[in-house]
Amino acid sequence: MPQQVLPGFRVTISLPVQWGEQDGFGHVNNMHFIRWFESARIAYWLKCEPAMTSEGLGPILAAVSCNFRKQVKFPDTVIVGARVTRIGRSSLVIEHQLWSEQLQAIAAEGDSTVVLFDYQNQRSFEIPAELRAKIETLENRTFT
Amino acid sequence: MPQQVLPGFRVTISLPVQWGEQDGFGHVNNMHFIRWFESARIAYWLKCEPAMTSEGLGPILAAVSCNFRKQVKFPDTVIVGARVTRIGRSSLVIEHQLWSEQLQAIAAEGDSTVVLFDYQNQRSFEIPAELRAKIETLENRTFT
Amino acid sequence: MPQQVLPGFRVTISLPVQWGEQDGFGHVNNMHFIRWFESARIAYWLKCEPAMTSEGLGPILAAVSCNFRKQVKFPDTVIVGARVTRIGRSSLVIEHQLWSEQLQAIAAEGDSTVVLFDYQNQRSFEIPAELRAKIETLENRTFT
Amino acid sequence: MPQQVLPGFRVTISLPVQWGEQDGFGHVNNMHFIRWFESARIAYWLKCEPAMTSEGLGPILAAVSCNFRKQVKFPDTVIVGARVTRIGRSSLVIEHQLWSEQLQAIAAEGDSTVVLFDYQNQRSFEIPAELRAKIETLENRTFT
Repeated sequence: MPQQVLPGFRVTISLPVQWGEQDGFGHVNNMHFIRWFESARIAYWLKCEPAMTSEGLGPILAAVSCNFRKQVKFPDTVIVGARVTRIGRSSLVIEHQLWSEQLQAIAAEGDSTVVLFDYQNQRSFEIPAELRAKIETLENRTFT
Repeated sequence: MPQQVLPGFRVTISLPVQWGEQDGFGHVNNMHFIRWFESARIAYWLKCEPAMTSEGLGPILAAVSCNFRKQVKFPDTVIVGARVTRIGRSSLVIEHQLWSEQLQAIAAEGDSTVVLFDYQNQRSFEIPAELRAKIETLENRTFT
Repeated sequence: MPQQVLPGFRVTISLPVQWGEQDGFGHVNNMHFIRWFESARIAYWLKCEPAMTSEGLGPILAAVSCNFRKQVKFPDTVIVGARVTRIGRSSLVIEHQLWSEQLQAIAAEGDSTVVLFDYQNQRSFEIPAELRAKIETLENRTFT
Repeated sequence: MPQQVLPGFRVTISLPVQWGEQDGFGHVNNMHFIRWFESARIAYWLKCEPAMTSEGLGPILAAVSCNFRKQVKFPDTVIVGARVTRIGRSSLVIEHQLWSEQLQAIAAEGDSTVVLFDYQNQRSFEIPAELRAKIETLENRTFT
């Protein structure tokens, strides 16, 4: 089970590495780790619906970082986790870990900072109580 | 001139935004900023040849981060800069800034940490004096 | 001038090859040629506005093909052309050619079939006379 | 089982659609179908090893085409098949079909033409008898 390789992550996804994601250095290009983090975040939002998104409202990425620990190569399957580690007024910090089945090791980890954004009016908005509650239930903890 | 929009950056590249780089939110997907940073790093290495790369030796990305300040949309042209801000034993920290022609503003900025890597023996190696000298000339400064 | 390398193409775009677009075979991955074709088509639509798109209406890709003649590698700049070669009831056939500056040769060519699509009602619609006229002016010919 | 949705295909792969593969039209961008076809081809080569590849020899893509029948959207899982339909002197034609789990329909189909290529000497080479035999066993038919 994915949860076992990434303990503490309630939301994980499993993705097969595609050959074409490798670059001239013979390993998966760094850009794809960022795409995989995004896919894990999206899986997280889906767990928070309908609290996360409504008409014209949605998450916008404010920052992302990734530490590369291992080279990932084809063929492999990666398990990518996302969990909220901090809740601000209108922003969330999400931690990511990426497990390689081939390497049986964490190959990368990072953080995303997401702001709740009103795309219509182009400004951030405060995290609704309903969303905070959903996240606290999902993470089985409270945020101050 | 690109140098004027990103003062302090000796190495910049100019890239047209492609329509297909936009995602469902109607702006360029975050992954492409990471690709653009990479392209700026590659331009930097080309300025450091042959000191940077030789048979089986090359840079490997240890970490990358990006702060998104503005939404970039098609059509636009971005100017991406890379400059070394720190030199370690076998690692370099590279700062990136990304200028949007349409917005006439810095749309993103970030850092890459690169390790000089011996791909054949799969281990890092010390930054050669020749490379350090090339970087110091390029940046017009010394690193301690 | 781009027009000189791709005679007969009134719409061309110029794109720098990015290092990371290369795959494990050391040349640009085939997928990116398809992206480049798309970018040329988009440039074509922009020449046809506002005839091409209005609220909820737009082009949808029905088919694409590419013949690879030469391996494209970084560094290079490609010139990509798009021209309409056939107009149907609700579809257009667009021919693409891709010129490599490094190779001074056509590196790829292909065709796209595009259908005018009413995204709201999810069905094709007949090519408006205004759009046909724009294309005929652009191509300096008539279509039967 | 994947084989049931794509009868006649002995080699199929299953891939989750990633949210970020969608473009501004709200469906998966055409480029990713081409990547998915490639991933199915690679799965095919892996079934043909070591006949397919040896030092400096490998497949090179000569042509690719795709007919888009349905719009694929996130979330979905696609099953992609590859099968050899023709063997030439040094080339193979591979047919692709792409099944959408969400739509329970074939969403795209296409062909790839692959040439066996000696990357070191930069020229094609004749299909070895061993590879032909592997393909005939895999496809359970003979090719003339």
